[in-house]
Amino acid sequence: MRLTPTTELVDRIQKLQKEMIIHSLDAILIVQNADLFYFTGAVQQGALYVPIEGEALYLVRKDHGRARMESGLKEVIPFKSLRDIPGVLADFGYAMPKTVGMELDVVPVAVMQRFQTGLGESTISDATPLIRNVRAVKSTYEIGIMKDAALILDKVCKKAVEVIHEGMTDLELAAELEFVARKAGHQGMVRMRGFNSELFFGHAFSGADSAVPTYSDTPLGGVGLSPSFPQGASYKKIHKHEPITVDFVSVFDGYIVDQTRMFSIGELPEKLAKAYVDMVLILKHAKLIAKPGASWGGVYDECLQMACDMGYQEHFMGSKGAQVSFIGHGVGVELDEYPFIARGFNDYELQENMVFAFEPKVVFPGLGAVGVEDTFWVGAEGLKHLTFANHELMIL
Amino acid sequence: MRLTPTTELVDRIQKLQKEMIIHSLDAILIVQNADLFYFTGAVQQGALYVPIEGEALYLVRKDHGRARMESGLKEVIPFKSLRDIPGVLADFGYAMPKTVGMELDVVPVAVMQRFQTGLGESTISDATPLIRNVRAVKSTYEIGIMKDAALILDKVCKKAVEVIHEGMTDLELAAELEFVARKAGHQGMVRMRGFNSELFFGHAFSGADSAVPTYSDTPLGGVGLSPSFPQGASYKKIHKHEPITVDFVSVFDGYIVDQTRMFSIGELPEKLAKAYVDMVLILKHAKLIAKPGASWGGVYDECLQMACDMGYQEHFMGSKGAQVSFIGHGVGVELDEYPFIARGFNDYELQENMVFAFEPKVVFPGLGAVGVEDTFWVGAEGLKHLTFANHELMIL
Repeated sequence: MRLTPTTELVDRIQKLQKEMIIHSLDAILIVQNADLFYFTGAVQQGALYVPIEGEALYLVRKDHGRARMESGLKEVIPFKSLRDIPGVLADFGYAMPKTVGMELDVVPVAVMQRFQTGLGESTISDATPLIRNVRAVKSTYEIGIMKDAALILDKVCKKAVEVIHEGMTDLELAAELEFVARKAGHQGMVRMRGFNSELFFGHAFSGADSAVPTYSDTPLGGVGLSPSFPQGASYKKIHKHEPITVDFVSVFDGYIVDQTRMFSIGELPEKLAKAYVDMVLILKHAKLIAKPGASWGGVYDECLQMACDMGYQEHFMGSKGAQVSFIGHGVGVELDEYPFIARGFNDYELQENMVFAFEPKVVFPGLGAVGVEDTFWVGAEGLKHLTFANHELMIL
Repeated sequence: MRLTPTTELVDRIQKLQKEMIIHSLDAILIVQNADLFYFTGAVQQGALYVPIEGEALYLVRKDHGRARMESGLKEVIPFKSLRDIPGVLADFGYAMPKTVGMELDVVPVAVMQRFQTGLGESTISDATPLIRNVRAVKSTYEIGIMKDAALILDKVCKKAVEVIHEGMTDLELAAELEFVARKAGHQGMVRMRGFNSELFFGHAFSGADSAVPTYSDTPLGGVGLSPSFPQGASYKKIHKHEPITVDFVSVFDGYIVDQTRMFSIGELPEKLAKAYVDMVLILKHAKLIAKPGASWGGVYDECLQMACDMGYQEHFMGSKGAQVSFIGHGVGVELDEYPFIARGFNDYELQENMVFAFEPKVVFPGLGAVGVEDTFWVGAEGLKHLTFANHELMIL
């Protein structure tokens, strides 16, 4: 079992404290699982109090003994009630903060109100951008875990080659791939930050079903098994000459990588085969231009323009009316992190060791979707692959 | 594909409107996926506006065409921005509401603030208890789906009997059971309402690992694969004479049922074997007393007392210091619904057709956990089984 080293945690907290100086926050109170894991190495129930200066305090309600073992932080303190917060702060010589940041993008109103009670007169404001900024730039340690996570996706692709056959359902394919991923150590749960965002492993679907749009902020949606969870694999049978999408998310030791590869039984129709090659060209172009200093929105704009020039204006990143406004998304302990390679993010710069998935895709309603996706980290000279399966359309 | 009938949706919305009269709300705006599915039959991105009187309006941002097909509601309206809300209401002859209920237990602060912009002067208050009340009492239609969901758990148990062998890891067992459930139509995603609550299929674990407490509000926790998701199966190998817990959640067509059964390779130590029989006795006692009109807290108190009289005071519903304050939890489109068979809920009455999982369990640190769980619906004469596998400890 891999425990996050103390040096990592200290470094992350110091980066957050630097952000707090810039944004004039006296303290940040972190309560959401993904952020707790990132800043404490554990997700045991409680809150991490980060003062603008000094040691962070991990207040743990349940299970304290376990948090003590799993977190590399110095101060892991048992606590019962939010009313105890002032007392704990006083014990450590910390004054009650005037301004406290919380994760207001994910913390429910009722939860925030309970914390307000514990914080008395303190003013609560949103610390989300600060946390996102710190988390966006990965350490060598984190990139190492993500390389391990990518190995699972390679197994998924190899399994797809082995099991895909005419007449099997999309669900059967999905189940086989999930089974392989899970046995290889996939943690199961995929964390997403966006309200109402949800994903189960990813998507495996074929033909027209892969072109059906849905509620999620993703280029492809899929029919799913029921309107209750209308995404991903359905009971549709796989036929010859259909595009088969395997867009899978691996989560290993808490870290996510994301990859899409395409398969077909026999050749694809010319239009789809060409579109696939074109999407790989866009991915290769992104690898050239996405260097440190490039703007997130600039990379998006240039790749979108390339897709339009290729004639995919009404198909790129979703069918007409359901197109999403991004091509890439940061990944780490959540699937929807900074950087967003998306419309409007032209004032945000790529930095070395940011990690993102890039997924140019086109959708032809009634016919199917094709595209490719890799997860990269930003090296000094450009993008470096985390996922590594080859880019050939796999014709079975 | 099963679509929620319009008669169901109309009935649910009328019940919610009755609650609104009692609680003096002019309207409720529903935005969370589970509630959207319950009240619209779909989870397409948007909001359901329920006025105190008159037709509900399902405002859909993405994907409208799909919401139109999947929802049985009369008014499914495309919309782009929260600023359009006043205009849409005016189109339907609805005045801007003075008081609007929202799901403040799940809606993040930042999301609520955006809705406040769209709602102008309206005062937003918490509609959670109203929604919980309506959802707690199931229709015959819903109970029918849950019976289908229970069939998956029977397959899971049969597979466990087939695959459990000495030396296999808890993870291998979990993966096999997840695979069977998924192929049988399990939707994958398990929805929970509580902030930071998360579950992946459920738990399969053995021996001492099953006695390890964790962050979740559950009697058992488990080690998991990593501190990033510290629950459920680990890499531990299964040995003879150890309790093996299979606590699995089935989700079919959006509806949840929950079941726990125990297995062992060879006999269990006497203490654990006796504790298992005792837990089954508590479950059987609950079946006798949990009739319409009984209080949720009363059933809890009586069963807790029974466990204490049996000598399990320091082991019941968790190890000492990590005990949870419930024995049962309502299930439906989420895993943590009303009714809560829990401490303090003595003013809440069981009603016919409420559905809940009841799970008396004991934990012996270093040794293991044993217990049993079934999902029931409340019939006029007492509890009726949804899950139906037999209660024998399965010695393999």
